Amino acid sequence: MAGYDTISFLTDYGTADEFVGVVHSVIRQLAPDVRVIDINHQVPAHDVRAGSLTLARAAQYLAPGVVLAVVDPGVATSRRAIAVEVGGGASILVGPDNGLLAPAVQMVGGATRAVELANLEYQLPAPGPTFAGRDIFGPAAAHLCNGVDLLELGPELDTNGLMPGMIPITRIEDGALVAEVLWTDGFGNLQLNVDPDEIATYGDRIGLRFDGRTRTGIRRHTYGEIATGEVGLVVDSYGLVSIAVDRSSAAEELGLGTGAEVQLVPLDDDDEGARPSIATPVTLQEKPR
Amino acid sequence: MAGYDTISFLTDYGTADEFVGVVHSVIRQLAPDVRVIDINHQVPAHDVRAGSLTLARAAQYLAPGVVLAVVDPGVATSRRAIAVEVGGGASILVGPDNGLLAPAVQMVGGATRAVELANLEYQLPAPGPTFAGRDIFGPAAAHLCNGVDLLELGPELDTNGLMPGMIPITRIEDGALVAEVLWTDGFGNLQLNVDPDEIATYGDRIGLRFDGRTRTGIRRHTYGEIATGEVGLVVDSYGLVSIAVDRSSAAEELGLGTGAEVQLVPLDDDDEGARPSIATPVTLQEKPR
Amino acid sequence: MAGYDTISFLTDYGTADEFVGVVHSVIRQLAPDVRVIDINHQVPAHDVRAGSLTLARAAQYLAPGVVLAVVDPGVATSRRAIAVEVGGGASILVGPDNGLLAPAVQMVGGATRAVELANLEYQLPAPGPTFAGRDIFGPAAAHLCNGVDLLELGPELDTNGLMPGMIPITRIEDGALVAEVLWTDGFGNLQLNVDPDEIATYGDRIGLRFDGRTRTGIRRHTYGEIATGEVGLVVDSYGLVSIAVDRSSAAEELGLGTGAEVQLVPLDDDDEGARPSIATPVTLQEKPR
Repeated sequence: MAGYDTISFLTDYGTADEFVGVVHSVIRQLAPDVRVIDINHQVPAHDVRAGSLTLARAAQYLAPGVVLAVVDPGVATSRRAIAVEVGGGASILVGPDNGLLAPAVQMVGGATRAVELANLEYQLPAPGPTFAGRDIFGPAAAHLCNGVDLLELGPELDTNGLMPGMIPITRIEDGALVAEVLWTDGFGNLQLNVDPDEIATYGDRIGLRFDGRTRTGIRRHTYGEIATGEVGLVVDSYGLVSIAVDRSSAAEELGLGTGAEVQLVPLDDDDEGARPSIATPVTLQEKPR
Repeated sequence: MAGYDTISFLTDYGTADEFVGVVHSVIRQLAPDVRVIDINHQVPAHDVRAGSLTLARAAQYLAPGVVLAVVDPGVATSRRAIAVEVGGGASILVGPDNGLLAPAVQMVGGATRAVELANLEYQLPAPGPTFAGRDIFGPAAAHLCNGVDLLELGPELDTNGLMPGMIPITRIEDGALVAEVLWTDGFGNLQLNVDPDEIATYGDRIGLRFDGRTRTGIRRHTYGEIATGEVGLVVDSYGLVSIAVDRSSAAEELGLGTGAEVQLVPLDDDDEGARPSIATPVTLQEKPR
Repeated sequence: MAGYDTISFLTDYGTADEFVGVVHSVIRQLAPDVRVIDINHQVPAHDVRAGSLTLARAAQYLAPGVVLAVVDPGVATSRRAIAVEVGGGASILVGPDNGLLAPAVQMVGGATRAVELANLEYQLPAPGPTFAGRDIFGPAAAHLCNGVDLLELGPELDTNGLMPGMIPITRIEDGALVAEVLWTDGFGNLQLNVDPDEIATYGDRIGLRFDGRTRTGIRRHTYGEIATGEVGLVVDSYGLVSIAVDRSSAAEELGLGTGAEVQLVPLDDDDEGARPSIATPVTLQEKPR
C-alpha cells in the first residue's frame, strides 16, 4: 500500500472565495500528512482548454503523486469524474473527463489505467450537487494518497474512451506557418504553438501576420536582449516560440491574446547569419484594412 | 497539554501585499510544526459581514484546531481582541469581537468559553499599533497550538456579551418571500438567504422580483442543466438557494450583487410536477420603470 | 552540515499563471521537508524597487532560513544570479543582483558572504533560458536547505561589489520635509519614507503639499481614530509615517500613489498639545492649478 505524499492542485476557482481553502481543509482531515501544492487557481472560469494547457506546461515539473485538477463547466451533468493513472502508478490525475487532463496525460506517456469516481464511500455527503472539488475530487485525491487502490474508487474505464485534449496544431498555408497564441502570461508574453524546429530554416527576422497587419519579429535568446520598440521572438521557458517586447506587455502593444491566429513567414534576410529561405518566398505587404 | 496542529486563516488582507505572508512567518517561528491553511484573504476590505458569512460557509469543512480570522476595521480602537472556544475545546476561533466570528461560532454549537487577548506576554512588540494579525491574533493562534491554556491569554469573558453576527433572515410580505443576496461567488452565482424548505410549496417556476423587474427562475438540480438564456434556481453546494445562468455570471446578466433584495413569488404552474401553489396567488406584471 | 528548514518566497510572478506553483513543485522534489512560505507574488511586474521595499518591510519578521526573491527584468542578461549570506549564516538571500535583495540585507546587518550562482550542477536543465526562478534560484534555495555549502554554488563575490538598493531619503527644502510615497497598500494607505522622529517637533496638524495642492494631516494613533472626511497621519505597523483616511482608500481620495512626492510642513497650531513650530514658519495657500 504505497500511496503518495503530494497533491498538485489546479482549478478555475479563483482566489476571491473560499473554494480552494475548503478543499485544502477537506484533504487535511482525510490525509493529514499530505502536502498540497497550489499550481494555479486562476485558470479563466470554465476554460477547459486554458486549464489543460496550464497543466501540460507544468506537468514535467510536478512532484510525483496525485494531480487534482478541476475546471468543470459540466459539473454534475453527464460528464464523468475520473482518476487516470500514468507511468504504471508513478502519478494519478484526478478531475472531470472533459479533456482537462488529456494533454498532461499524453505528455507523460499516456494513461496506464483509469476509473470512474463512482464509489460513494470515498465521497463527502453534499448538501447540493455542485462542489465536486470538495465532495468528490478532493476526497478521491486524499484517499489515493492514503494508499486506497485506484480500482476501489469506481469501475475501470477503457483509457481509449477518455475525452481527448484540444491542443491546436500548426499548418502550412501559402508558404506561411499558421500558428495560434496558446497562452498570454501575466507579463503579456504570447506563447505560440510553435516548436523552434518548425522555423529552423527561417532567418533571424520573421514576418508576423495577424489581424490584417504585418510586423517583423526578431529572434532573441532572452527577453532582456529585446531592444526598445522591437518585437522579439524568444524560445520561452517551456521550449516554445513566444512573442515578447521590452519590459512591457506584447499582448497589449500588439492587441493580441490567447486564441488569436498568427502567421509566421520567412523574410529575405541579408544577415550573414541568415539560414536558407524556404522554396517559395512570399512577398509581404501591409494588407489594406 | 493538548494543543492543535492546524490553523485555518481568513482575512481581508488581500494578496497584493505581504500581510498574509508575514503572519505565516510569525506563526512559523512560534509554532513551527503547525499547518496553516489559507481559507480566503480576499474578503472585501473592512466587510465584516462578508467575512463572517465566508467563515460560516466554510466552518463545517474546517479541520479541528484554531481558526484565525481578521476583518477588523476598528483595529486598535475599543473593539476587543478575543479567542472563543467551541465544542468544549474542539476548536478555538481567534479574531476581533466585532461579529466576524459569531455566525461560525453559532453554526458549530455556540461558545463554551471566551477570553480577551490582553496578556502582552503572548503578543509581539509592535512598532505601530495597527497590524493586529501579526502582533496579537497570529501569535495567540500559534501559542494556542503550542498548548498554552486559553485562560492564559487574558481575562475570561461572558460568552453572552460577545458581539452578535449579522446574518439577515427572510420574511413574508404580500405573499412574497423577501430574500437577500448573501454572496456573489467568483463565477457570478448569487446565493440567497433562502433554505430550500422555504420554497418547498412553490412550483418549478418561481417569480423573481428585484430592482423593479420580474424574471422567472426555473428550478434545476445542477448548474449544468440550466438552459441558455434561462435564469436557474439551484440548491448550491452549501445547501442554500442560488440564482445562476448558463456558464456565465448571473450577477452581471441580472445586474444584481451581494446585499440586493430579491422577492420570490410562486407562479401558477401547469407542469404536472407542480406542487400546490400557496393560498393567495399573486398577479405578476412588469412594474413600470 | 546544518541547512535550513524554511524558504520565504517573494516574486513578481503574479497569481494568474502557474509560475509560483512550478517553483514550489521543483523545491518539493529537491528538498521535500522544507516549508515554503509565500510572502508576496504580486509585486508589480519588473518593479525591483517595490520588491526590495516589500522584502525590507518583511525582513525582520521572516523565519531564519533561505529567502528566495525574484523580480528580475534583466533575466538571463548580464546581471548576476547571487546568494547572499547574512548574520554569519543565520539566513541566505537568493535572487538577482539588481538591488532587490540589498535593503533587506542591510536591515539585518549586511552581507557576510556572497557567491554567484554559476555552478550548473545545482541548476535544472532549461528548455529556454528565461525562467530563472524554476531553473536557477529555486534549486539553489532548495540545495542550501539541504546543507549544500554556499561556496559550492559558485565563485565567491566581494560583498561590496553587489548592486546597492534604491530607497529614497527625505530632504529639507524651504522649511518643508520633502518625502515620497514608498508604498500604497491594498487598503489604500500611503506609507511615506518618514520616520516619526523627523516630524517630532511638528504639531498635531501637519500641512501636506502634493500635486499643487495642500491638505492638513491630523496625527492619530490608529486608523480607527481618524474622523470621517479627515486626512490622518498614523505611524504604521512598520514604524513609518503613513497617510490614511477613515475606512477608505487615501490613495484614491487624494489621487496619490507610490513614488509621489509629498512635502510635510509644520502648521501654526493652537492646540494646547502643540509642540514648538520650526524657526521659519511657512504661509500655506492653495496654489493655482
